[in-house]
Amino acid sequence: MKLDLWFSEVHNDNIAFSVRVKDILFKGKSKYQEIAILDTYDFGRVLILDNTFQTTERDEFIYHELISHIPLFTHPNPKDVLVIGGGDGGTVREVLKHESVENVDFVELDEMVIEACKKYLPKLSCKIDDEKVNLIITDGIKYVAETDKKYDVIIVDCPDPVGPAKGLFEKEFYKNIFKCLKEDGLMVQQTESPLYDLELIKNIVNYLKEAGFKIIMPYLYPMPTYPSGMWSFTLASKKYNPLEVDEEHIKNKIKNMDTKYYDEKVHKGIFLATPKFLKEVVE
Amino acid sequence: MKLDLWFSEVHNDNIAFSVRVKDILFKGKSKYQEIAILDTYDFGRVLILDNTFQTTERDEFIYHELISHIPLFTHPNPKDVLVIGGGDGGTVREVLKHESVENVDFVELDEMVIEACKKYLPKLSCKIDDEKVNLIITDGIKYVAETDKKYDVIIVDCPDPVGPAKGLFEKEFYKNIFKCLKEDGLMVQQTESPLYDLELIKNIVNYLKEAGFKIIMPYLYPMPTYPSGMWSFTLASKKYNPLEVDEEHIKNKIKNMDTKYYDEKVHKGIFLATPKFLKEVVE
Repeated sequence: MKLDLWFSEVHNDNIAFSVRVKDILFKGKSKYQEIAILDTYDFGRVLILDNTFQTTERDEFIYHELISHIPLFTHPNPKDVLVIGGGDGGTVREVLKHESVENVDFVELDEMVIEACKKYLPKLSCKIDDEKVNLIITDGIKYVAETDKKYDVIIVDCPDPVGPAKGLFEKEFYKNIFKCLKEDGLMVQQTESPLYDLELIKNIVNYLKEAGFKIIMPYLYPMPTYPSGMWSFTLASKKYNPLEVDEEHIKNKIKNMDTKYYDEKVHKGIFLATPKFLKEVVE
Repeated sequence: MKLDLWFSEVHNDNIAFSVRVKDILFKGKSKYQEIAILDTYDFGRVLILDNTFQTTERDEFIYHELISHIPLFTHPNPKDVLVIGGGDGGTVREVLKHESVENVDFVELDEMVIEACKKYLPKLSCKIDDEKVNLIITDGIKYVAETDKKYDVIIVDCPDPVGPAKGLFEKEFYKNIFKCLKEDGLMVQQTESPLYDLELIKNIVNYLKEAGFKIIMPYLYPMPTYPSGMWSFTLASKKYNPLEVDEEHIKNKIKNMDTKYYDEKVHKGIFLATPKFLKEVVE
């Protein structure tokens, strides 16, 4: 008998997204969460934390390209980068495509996620051991509160705002992010679904304003395996405006970066295409 | 006992999207398909054809604004419009927001869809009986093959390319669409998911080229209740380029149109934001 196995993420008690499963590759319980890596028919290998889709081999390029190349091409010369979360390694992989980047401090709370992804998701985790990457196993909230280091770009590749990740969406955290950025620094964060979490996005934008950021711009992208499939990042910048970057500069650099989603047109287009109801949140 | 009722659309045998159901408002079988209208907890009222999500009260604004305002603002003065499909009436409702529009020929195959939507989806169907709307119950494929009329804009608001809708994605149909457009006319069609149907989109683009269209541009948007949540329209134009429209003109007109997604920035941004892998299909 071939078992007809499905994994379902139920969101909000009222919707569910399900994928048919070939095999369970890994199942573990860390100090922080339950971790599973599944092999699925349609989305390849899939990382699940606490029964929630985190990333899949099929659609990860959308998320990881857009969380990385948008901020790194908004900054004219990013050297020091901090990545908080994203234990699968996909964000670090994209960040390292930028030759200007000299050092990536990679702060992840859960070592078991790193180890499982290194073993079962090599397409994502392939650069975690790169010599430019400095892996620090600790709480990102604590890290930005305590460190004296200053970065050009900070990327917050966080899960949903529940459990240990809750503090990654609170006022204090954004103040510390601001403190940890150089005078012309900028940050990007995963900021949930504009369909389900518009109030949360409003709060984040207000916290970012209070923290002192001059330019705050949410942007939207499709994410097939996240609830509603309609997801957002928010960029907050002290100086550089993503709409004012030199398109030719991106065009020259991106050629060798092997992207599938991002290019120099997408860079500006994605902000212009932000739906009216989401833009209104920032005003 | 309160029945814990769910409706699931299984796509490709390997993924499923499910919504929890309050009530079944309508269930019928026409000559062409099975029709249901459900009341759901998260998406309001939902139209289902042959077990496939067509439209929902919660996310319909995305689809209907983008299938209507993009072509109607790309054309400088649209008067005669043909809408094929879209029996729920959402597209016709948005088309009629354009004061320049004098006549909408609304060709729908299935009268039972019209009647059910008039009764149970009034937020969408509210303009079907407008005096500018000329409802014609017939096959859109046959209609464009036989009519001598010429339109400024044709909108093909079609279901998936199976059953009676298959011909809406074939070479002959696009030739007839071209024939039914004035010298400066343009069309837009619903063209499935770039994640699942990239080959189909390639074929459509080639057929549109063969038919004689000079400007062919797919665009992407999130559609929570469609498989993968990542969906496309394709615009094909004889003369006008959507990137060359006057932004101020749109800004002045859109003020009174009560849109939630579309505005003058989205108009151009949505094309610039087309992901690299989808743009490559057109080249």
